[in-house]
Amino acid sequence: MGQQQQDMAKSAETEDRIARLFADRYGASEPGLPGYSGDVLETILGHRTVRSYLPDAVDEEDISVAIAAAQSAPSSSNLQLWNVVTVADPERISRLAALANNQKHIYAAPLVMVWICDLSRMRKMTEIEGTTADGLDYLELFLTSVVDVSLAAQNACVTLEALGYGTCYIGSMRSNPIELSAELDLPKGSFSVFGMTVGREDPARPASVKPRLPQRTVWHKETYRADTVAEDIAQYNATMRDFQQAQAMPVVDWSLKSAERVATADMLKNRDKLKGFLEERGFSFK
Amino acid sequence: MGQQQQDMAKSAETEDRIARLFADRYGASEPGLPGYSGDVLETILGHRTVRSYLPDAVDEEDISVAIAAAQSAPSSSNLQLWNVVTVADPERISRLAALANNQKHIYAAPLVMVWICDLSRMRKMTEIEGTTADGLDYLELFLTSVVDVSLAAQNACVTLEALGYGTCYIGSMRSNPIELSAELDLPKGSFSVFGMTVGREDPARPASVKPRLPQRTVWHKETYRADTVAEDIAQYNATMRDFQQAQAMPVVDWSLKSAERVATADMLKNRDKLKGFLEERGFSFK
Repeated sequence: MGQQQQDMAKSAETEDRIARLFADRYGASEPGLPGYSGDVLETILGHRTVRSYLPDAVDEEDISVAIAAAQSAPSSSNLQLWNVVTVADPERISRLAALANNQKHIYAAPLVMVWICDLSRMRKMTEIEGTTADGLDYLELFLTSVVDVSLAAQNACVTLEALGYGTCYIGSMRSNPIELSAELDLPKGSFSVFGMTVGREDPARPASVKPRLPQRTVWHKETYRADTVAEDIAQYNATMRDFQQAQAMPVVDWSLKSAERVATADMLKNRDKLKGFLEERGFSFK
Repeated sequence: MGQQQQDMAKSAETEDRIARLFADRYGASEPGLPGYSGDVLETILGHRTVRSYLPDAVDEEDISVAIAAAQSAPSSSNLQLWNVVTVADPERISRLAALANNQKHIYAAPLVMVWICDLSRMRKMTEIEGTTADGLDYLELFLTSVVDVSLAAQNACVTLEALGYGTCYIGSMRSNPIELSAELDLPKGSFSVFGMTVGREDPARPASVKPRLPQRTVWHKETYRADTVAEDIAQYNATMRDFQQAQAMPVVDWSLKSAERVATADMLKNRDKLKGFLEERGFSFK
C-alpha cells in the first residue's frame, strides 16, 4: 500500500471518530468537518512563527474547525470567559495593523483572529439569574479569563498549523485597546488580549524552528532550583548566536535583548498604560 | 497492509522528522524521544477532564516530551517567562492537595505539574546585563507571563493526551500561593498560576467529552455581536441539562451555576486575596 493509500485509509478511519467528537462537543448541534490532520508531536514540535503569507483566503471551514478546537480546550469551572473575532476584510485588517504598532506582517495577513477576554457575558448571566456579580471585580477573574482564552487560542494555533497554515501571535493588540475595542464593537468588560495572524506560508520566505532554553532551565523536579541559571543563560546565548548567524539576523545576546525589552516603561510600547485602559473598559483588579 | 503495519510505517516515517525537530528546538543539545503520537484534530477535539487515575507512574521520558512540547509554544518576544515544577513524591502531592482546597483527585494523581509564572529569571537577567528592570512592575509583564505559561501548558496537555494520559487543570493552586511557594521553594517574582494532574485514566471511571456553547456564541465575524446571547445561553442550558442527566450528575442550569460561582468574593475560595498574595510575592500591577 502506498503512502497516499495509507493516508486515505487513515483518513477514512479517523473521519467517523472526529465527526462523533464534534457532535459531543456541541451537543449534536453543529456540523462536523473531519479528515486526518497530522501527527500531534510533529505538529507541536514543528511550530514556527510565520510572518510571510500567500494572499490566499483562509477557508471558512478551517476556521470553524480551529474554533471547535479552541472550544475543546479546558475552561476553568466551564465558565468559557472568552470570544474570538475573525477579521478578513482587508480594510479592517489594515486598521487593526495600524493600531498594533504598524507591524508589516499584519497588513499582509489574509486573516486576523482577535482573541477576547470576556467578562461581559458572565455579567449578563448574573443579570439573567438575578445574582450579585462581586467576584467579577477581582484580579482572580481577570486572570481566569486570560488563562481560558490562552488555552483556547493555543488549541486553535496547533490545529491551524496541522491544517497547513502558518500563524503569529500579536501581543501589540494590547497597545491601543480603546481604539481597537471601538473598531470591533467590543462591549465593556471585554478586551483584545492578543491577536493571531493566519495564512498559508509564503514558500519563498520560510520560517525556522527557534531554539529555546535548555530543558533543565524550565523543568524543576520536586522543587524549584535556580543554581544553574547563569550558566544556562550563557549556553542559550551561544545557541541563539549560532541561530542568528545561520538566519542572517543581527547577532545579539538573548539576555541583553530581553533585559532591554523590560528595562523601562517606554519599552512596553504603550502597554505600560494597559491597567488604566482596562479599568476604563470595565475591568477591576481587587 | 494491516493497521498495525501501517502504524509502524507511519512511526518509522515520522521518527526522523521528530528527532530533527527536537534538535532544532534545543540547538542539538537535548536527546530526542520520537514516535508516532496520534491525530491532532482527534486528540484536541477528544479532550476530556480526567480525574480518576490508575496508580502507574508517569514515564520520565513522556514528561520530557511534554515539556519539549511546552517549550515549542509561542513565547512573547521569546522571553520564556515560565517554569514548571513536576511533583511525583506522594507526600509532597498530598501537601499540594491540602493547599489546593483538598481536592480528592489531586491526592490520587501519580504526577502533578505546577505551572509557574516567572519574572524572577528575567530580573536576574537585568542584573547580569546591568540594565534597569522598570517594565517588570507593570500589569503588562504579569499578563505576558500568564499568557506564556498558558500556551506552554496547553501544548503539554495536548501532548500528554496524545501519549495516552488524562489530565486536569487545577486552578486552586492559586488559593494558598504563599504556602505553596514555600513548599516548592519558589523564588520571589514567581508563583503557581495553575497545576495539572496527570495519569493513566482509570478505565472503570471514564470521563466524557463536555459540550460547549454554540460556536456562534464565541465566534464573531468582523465585529462583536451579542444579539443572540440570551437565546444561546438558554440553548446551552438545555444541552447541559441533557448532558448532566446522561452522566447522572445533579441537574442545574449552567447559567445559574456559573452566576453563583462569581456572585460573591467568598465564592472565589480564598482567591479574592490573590492580588495581596502576589504583591507579597514580589509582583506589581502598575
